[in-house]
Amino acid sequence: MSKVPLSRTGDIVWSRTPKTNSELFTLTYGVLVAQLLRDFEKVEEVNKELRRMGRNIGVRLIDEYLSKVSLASPTTPPCSTFHQTGDSIAKIGFKMFLGISCDISYPSPTTFVLTVHSNPLSTFVEIPPSREGLSYCEIMNGVIEGSLGAVSLRVESRFRKQIEKGDDVTTIEVEMMERIKDGVGEGYKDE
Amino acid sequence: MSKVPLSRTGDIVWSRTPKTNSELFTLTYGVLVAQLLRDFEKVEEVNKELRRMGRNIGVRLIDEYLSKVSLASPTTPPCSTFHQTGDSIAKIGFKMFLGISCDISYPSPTTFVLTVHSNPLSTFVEIPPSREGLSYCEIMNGVIEGSLGAVSLRVESRFRKQIEKGDDVTTIEVEMMERIKDGVGEGYKDE
Repeated sequence: MSKVPLSRTGDIVWSRTPKTNSELFTLTYGVLVAQLLRDFEKVEEVNKELRRMGRNIGVRLIDEYLSKVSLASPTTPPCSTFHQTGDSIAKIGFKMFLGISCDISYPSPTTFVLTVHSNPLSTFVEIPPSREGLSYCEIMNGVIEGSLGAVSLRVESRFRKQIEKGDDVTTIEVEMMERIKDGVGEGYKDE
Repeated sequence: MSKVPLSRTGDIVWSRTPKTNSELFTLTYGVLVAQLLRDFEKVEEVNKELRRMGRNIGVRLIDEYLSKVSLASPTTPPCSTFHQTGDSIAKIGFKMFLGISCDISYPSPTTFVLTVHSNPLSTFVEIPPSREGLSYCEIMNGVIEGSLGAVSLRVESRFRKQIEKGDDVTTIEVEMMERIKDGVGEGYKDE
Protein backbone atom coordinates (compact mmCIF):
# COMPACT_ATOMS: atom_id res chain seq x y z
CA MET A 1 0.00 0.00 0.00
CA SER A 2 1.32 3.43 -0.87
CA LYS A 3 2.04 5.86 1.92
CA VAL A 4 -0.13 8.95 1.95
CA PRO A 5 1.80 12.23 2.43
CA LEU A 6 1.10 13.77 5.82
CA SER A 7 -0.11 17.03 4.30
CA ARG A 8 -2.66 15.07 2.25
CA THR A 9 -3.87 13.30 5.40
CA GLY A 10 -4.10 16.71 7.05
CA ASP A 11 -6.25 18.00 4.19
CA ILE A 12 -8.54 14.94 4.32
CA VAL A 13 -9.03 15.18 8.07
CA TRP A 14 -9.61 18.94 7.83
CA SER A 15 -12.24 18.48 5.12
CA ARG A 16 -14.17 16.13 7.45
CA THR A 17 -13.84 18.28 10.56
CA PRO A 18 -16.78 20.27 11.95
CA LYS A 19 -15.67 23.89 11.94
CA THR A 20 -16.49 27.29 13.38
CA ASN A 21 -15.47 30.81 12.41
CA SER A 22 -11.81 31.66 13.16
CA GLU A 23 -12.61 35.19 14.27
CA LEU A 24 -15.15 33.93 16.79
CA PHE A 25 -12.52 31.52 18.12
CA THR A 26 -9.91 34.31 18.27
CA LEU A 27 -12.29 36.59 20.16
CA THR A 28 -13.34 33.85 22.58
CA TYR A 29 -9.72 33.05 23.32
CA GLY A 30 -9.07 36.78 23.79
CA VAL A 31 -11.90 36.96 26.33
CA LEU A 32 -10.32 34.06 28.22
CA VAL A 33 -6.89 35.74 28.34
CA ALA A 34 -8.48 39.03 29.43
CA GLN A 35 -10.31 37.24 32.23
CA LEU A 36 -7.09 35.66 33.48
CA LEU A 37 -5.36 39.05 33.38
CA ARG A 38 -8.12 40.29 35.67
CA ASP A 39 -7.81 37.25 37.94
CA PHE A 40 -4.07 37.12 38.47
CA GLU A 41 -1.71 39.85 39.57
CA LYS A 42 1.33 38.66 37.66
CA VAL A 43 1.48 37.83 33.97
CA GLU A 44 3.70 34.86 34.85
CA GLU A 45 0.73 33.38 36.66
CA VAL A 46 -1.46 33.98 33.63
CA ASN A 47 1.09 32.19 31.45
CA LYS A 48 1.15 29.25 33.87
CA GLU A 49 -2.62 29.07 33.95
CA LEU A 50 -2.88 29.17 30.14
CA ARG A 51 -0.36 26.36 29.90
CA ARG A 52 -2.31 24.31 32.45
CA MET A 53 -5.54 24.86 30.50
CA GLY A 54 -3.77 23.92 27.29
CA ARG A 55 -2.58 20.62 28.79
CA ASN A 56 -6.16 19.70 29.68
CA ILE A 57 -7.32 20.57 26.18
CA GLY A 58 -4.43 18.62 24.62
CA VAL A 59 -5.43 15.46 26.46
CA ARG A 60 -8.86 15.74 24.83
CA LEU A 61 -7.64 16.71 21.36
CA ILE A 62 -5.24 13.77 21.03
CA ASP A 63 -8.22 11.40 21.07
CA GLU A 64 -9.84 13.23 18.17
CA TYR A 65 -6.52 13.34 16.38
CA LEU A 66 -5.83 9.62 16.67
CA SER A 67 -9.33 8.52 15.69
CA LYS A 68 -9.65 10.91 12.72
CA VAL A 69 -6.16 10.21 11.38
CA SER A 70 -6.57 6.44 11.55
CA LEU A 71 -9.83 6.77 9.61
CA ALA A 72 -8.36 9.12 7.00
CA SER A 73 -5.14 7.24 6.51
CA PRO A 74 -5.33 3.68 7.87
CA THR A 75 -2.08 2.71 6.14
CA THR A 76 0.04 5.37 7.84
CA PRO A 77 2.35 3.60 10.33
CA PRO A 78 2.79 5.02 13.85
CA CYS A 79 5.60 7.56 14.23
CA SER A 80 8.92 5.81 14.70
CA THR A 81 11.03 8.89 15.51
CA PHE A 82 10.46 12.08 17.43
CA HIS A 83 10.93 14.00 14.19
CA GLN A 84 8.08 12.04 12.60
CA THR A 85 5.94 13.02 15.58
CA GLY A 86 6.87 16.62 14.84
CA ASP A 87 5.99 16.20 11.17
CA SER A 88 2.57 14.83 12.14
CA ILE A 89 1.93 17.80 14.43
CA ALA A 90 3.07 20.28 11.76
CA LYS A 91 1.21 18.80 8.80
CA ILE A 92 -1.84 17.14 10.38
CA GLY A 93 -2.32 18.47 13.93
CA PHE A 94 -2.09 22.17 13.12
CA LYS A 95 -4.19 21.67 10.00
CA MET A 96 -7.00 19.77 11.69
CA PHE A 97 -7.32 22.08 14.69
CA LEU A 98 -6.31 25.53 13.46
CA GLY A 99 -6.81 25.13 9.72
CA ILE A 100 -3.16 25.97 9.01
CA SER A 101 -0.05 23.92 8.46
CA CYS A 102 3.36 25.00 9.62
CA ASP A 103 6.99 24.46 8.73
CA ILE A 104 9.30 22.29 10.74
CA SER A 105 13.04 22.04 11.34
CA TYR A 106 15.10 19.63 13.46
CA PRO A 107 17.95 21.20 15.44
CA SER A 108 18.69 17.88 17.23
CA PRO A 109 17.37 14.28 17.35
CA THR A 110 15.27 15.12 20.41
CA THR A 111 14.06 18.54 19.28
CA PHE A 112 11.91 20.00 16.54
CA VAL A 113 10.93 23.58 15.86
CA LEU A 114 7.54 24.52 14.38
CA THR A 115 7.27 27.75 12.42
CA VAL A 116 3.82 29.33 12.21
CA HIS A 117 3.43 32.12 9.67
CA SER A 118 -0.02 33.26 10.71
CA ASN A 119 -1.47 32.38 14.10
CA PRO A 120 -5.29 32.35 14.35
CA LEU A 121 -5.06 32.64 18.14
CA SER A 122 -3.45 36.03 18.07
CA THR A 123 -4.79 37.73 14.94
CA PHE A 124 -4.71 41.51 15.51
CA VAL A 125 -3.20 41.03 18.99
CA GLU A 126 -0.36 43.25 20.09
CA ILE A 127 1.07 42.93 23.57
CA PRO A 128 1.27 46.36 25.24
CA PRO A 129 4.60 47.21 26.98
CA SER A 130 2.88 47.01 30.38
CA ARG A 131 2.17 43.32 29.74
CA GLU A 132 5.35 42.44 27.95
CA GLY A 133 5.87 39.28 30.02
CA LEU A 134 2.58 37.86 28.79
CA SER A 135 2.93 34.82 26.58
CA TYR A 136 -0.41 35.36 24.90
CA CYS A 137 -0.58 32.02 23.09
CA GLU A 138 0.92 30.01 25.94
CA ILE A 139 -2.07 27.65 25.74
CA MET A 140 -0.45 26.22 22.56
CA ASN A 141 2.56 24.98 24.51
CA GLY A 142 0.18 23.37 26.96
CA VAL A 143 -1.79 21.67 24.17
CA ILE A 144 1.41 20.21 22.69
CA GLU A 145 2.65 19.02 26.08
CA GLY A 146 -0.75 17.65 27.10
CA SER A 147 -1.46 15.81 23.86
CA LEU A 148 2.00 14.21 23.63
CA GLY A 149 1.96 13.46 27.36
CA ALA A 150 -1.24 11.50 26.82
CA VAL A 151 0.63 9.22 24.41
CA SER A 152 3.52 8.79 26.83
CA LEU A 153 5.93 11.39 25.48
CA ARG A 154 6.99 13.91 28.08
CA VAL A 155 8.03 17.03 26.18
CA GLU A 156 8.77 20.66 26.90
CA SER A 157 7.31 23.16 24.50
CA ARG A 158 8.32 26.84 24.45
CA PHE A 159 8.14 29.84 22.17
CA ARG A 160 11.27 31.15 20.52
CA LYS A 161 9.49 33.85 18.51
CA GLN A 162 5.99 35.31 18.80
CA ILE A 163 4.24 37.33 16.10
CA GLU A 164 2.25 39.26 18.71
CA LYS A 165 5.55 40.47 20.20
CA GLY A 166 6.69 41.88 16.88
CA ASP A 167 8.48 38.84 15.42
CA ASP A 168 7.86 37.97 11.77
CA VAL A 169 6.78 34.42 12.61
CA THR A 170 5.93 32.35 15.67
CA THR A 171 8.34 29.52 16.41
CA ILE A 172 7.73 26.76 18.93
CA GLU A 173 10.58 24.58 20.10
CA VAL A 174 9.51 21.14 21.31
CA GLU A 175 12.05 19.02 23.17
CA MET A 176 11.56 15.40 24.16
CA MET A 177 12.42 14.94 27.81
CA GLU A 178 11.35 11.35 28.37
CA ARG A 179 9.74 8.41 26.61
CA ILE A 180 7.43 6.67 29.02
CA LYS A 181 7.22 2.90 28.58
CA ASP A 182 4.22 1.28 26.89
CA GLY A 183 3.45 4.46 25.03
CA VAL A 184 3.49 5.63 21.45
CA GLY A 185 7.20 6.44 21.72
CA GLU A 186 8.04 2.83 22.59
CA GLY A 187 8.90 1.83 19.05
CA TYR A 188 11.09 4.89 18.45
CA LYS A 189 14.36 4.27 16.66
CA ASP A 190 17.44 6.08 17.91
CA GLU A 191 18.62 8.73 15.48
CA MET B 1 -31.43 41.82 -10.23
CA SER B 2 -32.71 38.64 -8.65
CA LYS B 3 -32.71 38.35 -4.90
CA VAL B 4 -30.35 35.74 -3.48
CA PRO B 5 -31.95 33.48 -0.82
CA LEU B 6 -30.48 34.17 2.63
CA SER B 7 -29.39 30.57 3.11
CA ARG B 8 -27.43 30.79 -0.16
CA THR B 9 -25.74 33.99 1.05
CA GLY B 10 -24.97 32.16 4.30
CA ASP B 11 -23.34 29.32 2.37
CA ILE B 12 -21.27 31.72 0.25
CA VAL B 13 -20.04 33.68 3.25
CA TRP B 14 -19.28 30.46 5.13
CA SER B 15 -17.26 29.08 2.22
CA ARG B 16 -15.08 32.21 2.30
CA THR B 17 -14.66 32.32 6.07
CA PRO B 18 -11.37 31.31 7.74
CA LYS B 19 -12.23 28.44 10.08
CA THR B 20 -10.95 26.49 13.03
CA ASN B 21 -11.91 23.14 14.53
CA SER B 22 -15.27 23.11 16.33
CA GLU B 23 -14.06 20.84 19.11
CA LEU B 24 -11.16 23.18 19.86
CA PHE B 25 -13.63 26.06 20.01
CA THR B 26 -15.98 24.07 22.27
CA LEU B 27 -13.13 23.16 24.63
CA THR B 28 -11.80 26.74 24.72
CA TYR B 29 -15.25 28.05 25.56
CA GLY B 30 -15.56 25.34 28.23
CA VAL B 31 -12.29 26.50 29.78
CA LEU B 32 -13.65 30.05 29.89
CA VAL B 33 -16.87 28.98 31.63
CA ALA B 34 -14.90 26.84 34.10
CA GLN B 35 -12.66 29.80 34.90
CA LEU B 36 -15.68 32.02 35.60
CA LEU B 37 -17.17 29.33 37.83
CA ARG B 38 -13.94 29.47 39.84
CA ASP B 39 -13.99 33.29 39.91
CA PHE B 40 -17.56 33.94 40.97
CA GLU B 41 -19.48 32.53 43.89
CA LYS B 42 -22.91 32.59 42.30
CA VAL B 43 -23.83 31.10 38.93
CA GLU B 44 -26.01 34.17 38.33
CA GLU B 45 -22.84 36.25 38.32
CA VAL B 46 -21.25 33.84 35.86
CA ASN B 47 -24.28 34.19 33.58
CA LYS B 48 -24.05 37.97 33.80
CA GLU B 49 -20.35 37.93 33.01
CA LEU B 50 -20.85 35.62 30.01
CA ARG B 51 -23.53 37.92 28.69
CA ARG B 52 -21.26 40.94 29.11
CA MET B 53 -18.45 39.14 27.26
CA GLY B 54 -20.87 38.15 24.53
CA ARG B 55 -21.94 41.77 24.02
CA ASN B 56 -18.31 42.79 23.49
CA ILE B 57 -17.83 39.97 21.01
CA GLY B 58 -21.07 40.83 19.21
CA VAL B 59 -19.92 44.40 18.62
CA ARG B 60 -16.88 42.99 16.82
CA LEU B 61 -18.71 40.27 14.89
CA ILE B 62 -21.29 42.62 13.39
CA ASP B 63 -18.50 44.36 11.47
CA GLU B 64 -17.38 41.09 9.93
CA TYR B 65 -21.00 40.17 9.22
CA LEU B 66 -21.82 43.41 7.41
CA SER B 67 -18.67 43.49 5.32
CA LYS B 68 -18.79 39.81 4.33
CA VAL B 69 -22.49 39.83 3.53
CA SER B 70 -22.28 42.96 1.37
CA LEU B 71 -19.46 41.32 -0.59
CA ALA B 72 -21.29 38.01 -1.00
CA SER B 73 -24.64 39.47 -1.83
CA PRO B 74 -24.41 43.13 -2.89
CA THR B 75 -27.99 43.12 -4.18
CA THR B 76 -29.57 42.12 -0.87
CA PRO B 77 -31.42 45.15 0.51
CA PRO B 78 -31.10 46.08 4.20
CA CYS B 79 -33.62 44.43 6.53
CA SER B 80 -36.90 46.33 6.52
CA THR B 81 -38.62 44.45 9.35
CA PHE B 82 -37.47 42.94 12.63
CA HIS B 83 -38.45 39.53 11.29
CA GLN B 84 -36.09 40.00 8.34
CA THR B 85 -33.35 40.81 10.84
CA GLY B 86 -34.18 37.53 12.55
CA ASP B 87 -34.07 35.66 9.23
CA SER B 88 -30.62 37.10 8.53
CA ILE B 89 -29.36 35.98 11.94
CA ALA B 90 -30.85 32.51 11.50
CA LYS B 91 -29.70 31.85 7.95
CA ILE B 92 -26.51 33.92 7.63
CA GLY B 93 -25.25 34.87 11.11
CA PHE B 94 -25.42 31.41 12.67
CA LYS B 95 -24.00 29.86 9.51
CA MET B 96 -21.04 32.20 9.18
CA PHE B 97 -20.00 32.06 12.83
CA LEU B 98 -20.99 28.62 14.07
CA GLY B 99 -21.28 26.72 10.79
CA ILE B 100 -24.94 25.87 11.43
CA SER B 101 -28.21 27.42 10.42
CA CYS B 102 -31.26 27.46 12.63
CA ASP B 103 -35.02 27.60 12.33
CA ILE B 104 -37.03 30.69 13.09
CA SER B 105 -40.57 31.50 14.16
CA TYR B 106 -42.34 34.80 14.82
CA PRO B 107 -44.62 34.91 17.85
CA SER B 108 -45.20 38.67 17.47
CA PRO B 109 -44.10 41.57 15.21
CA THR B 110 -41.40 42.53 17.70
CA THR B 111 -40.22 39.02 18.58
CA PHE B 112 -38.57 36.11 16.83
CA VAL B 113 -37.53 32.73 18.20
CA LEU B 114 -34.45 30.90 16.93
CA THR B 115 -34.36 27.11 17.21
CA VAL B 116 -30.93 25.49 17.28
CA HIS B 117 -30.86 21.71 16.84
CA SER B 118 -27.23 21.17 17.65
CA ASN B 119 -25.20 23.75 19.52
CA PRO B 120 -21.41 23.69 18.94
CA LEU B 121 -20.85 25.67 22.13
CA SER B 122 -22.23 22.99 24.38
CA THR B 123 -21.43 19.69 22.65
CA PHE B 124 -21.15 16.97 25.33
CA VAL B 125 -21.99 19.49 28.08
CA GLU B 126 -24.43 18.52 30.79
CA ILE B 127 -25.15 20.90 33.63
CA PRO B 128 -24.80 19.12 36.99
CA PRO B 129 -27.66 19.65 39.49
CA SER B 130 -25.32 21.68 41.73
CA ARG B 131 -25.00 24.26 38.95
CA GLU B 132 -28.51 24.14 37.63
CA GLY B 133 -28.81 27.93 37.51
CA LEU B 134 -25.91 28.14 35.08
CA SER B 135 -26.88 29.35 31.63
CA TYR B 136 -23.91 27.70 29.97
CA CYS B 137 -24.31 29.34 26.56
CA GLU B 138 -25.34 32.73 27.94
CA ILE B 139 -22.62 34.33 25.82
CA MET B 140 -24.91 33.75 22.79
CA ASN B 141 -27.55 36.09 24.21
CA GLY B 142 -24.83 38.66 24.73
CA VAL B 143 -23.57 38.28 21.15
CA ILE B 144 -27.07 38.82 19.76
CA GLU B 145 -27.69 41.84 22.00
CA GLY B 146 -24.25 43.32 21.32
CA SER B 147 -24.32 42.87 17.56
CA LEU B 148 -27.83 44.26 17.12
CA GLY B 149 -27.11 47.04 19.63
CA ALA B 150 -24.21 48.09 17.41
CA VAL B 151 -26.66 48.66 14.55
CA SER B 152 -29.04 50.62 16.78
CA LEU B 153 -31.49 47.90 17.68
CA ARG B 154 -31.86 47.43 21.42
CA VAL B 155 -33.06 43.86 21.95
CA GLU B 156 -33.41 41.40 24.78
CA SER B 157 -32.30 37.87 24.05
CA ARG B 158 -33.07 34.93 26.36
CA PHE B 159 -33.16 31.15 26.29
CA ARG B 160 -36.47 29.33 26.36
CA LYS B 161 -34.94 25.87 26.01
CA GLN B 162 -31.39 24.62 26.40
CA ILE B 163 -30.08 21.29 25.09
CA GLU B 164 -27.48 21.11 27.89
CA LYS B 165 -30.33 21.22 30.41
CA GLY B 166 -32.04 18.23 28.85
CA ASP B 167 -34.25 19.96 26.28
CA ASP B 168 -34.43 18.49 22.78
CA VAL B 169 -33.42 21.80 21.16
CA THR B 170 -32.11 25.19 22.20
CA THR B 171 -34.51 28.07 21.60
CA ILE B 172 -33.59 31.73 21.85
CA GLU B 173 -36.29 34.38 22.07
CA VAL B 174 -35.22 37.79 20.81
CA GLU B 175 -37.45 40.77 21.52
CA MET B 176 -37.01 44.23 20.10
CA MET B 177 -37.16 46.81 22.88
CA GLU B 178 -36.25 49.96 21.01
CA ARG B 179 -35.19 51.22 17.61
CA ILE B 180 -32.56 53.85 18.03
CA LYS B 181 -32.65 56.64 15.45
CA ASP B 182 -30.15 56.76 12.59
CA GLY B 183 -29.55 53.05 12.80
CA VAL B 184 -30.24 50.00 10.67
CA GLY B 185 -33.77 49.78 12.09
CA GLU B 186 -34.63 53.26 10.85
CA GLY B 187 -36.22 52.04 7.65
CA TYR B 188 -38.32 49.39 9.40
CA LYS B 189 -41.91 49.08 8.25
CA ASP B 190 -44.58 48.54 10.87
CA GLU B 191 -46.06 45.07 10.73
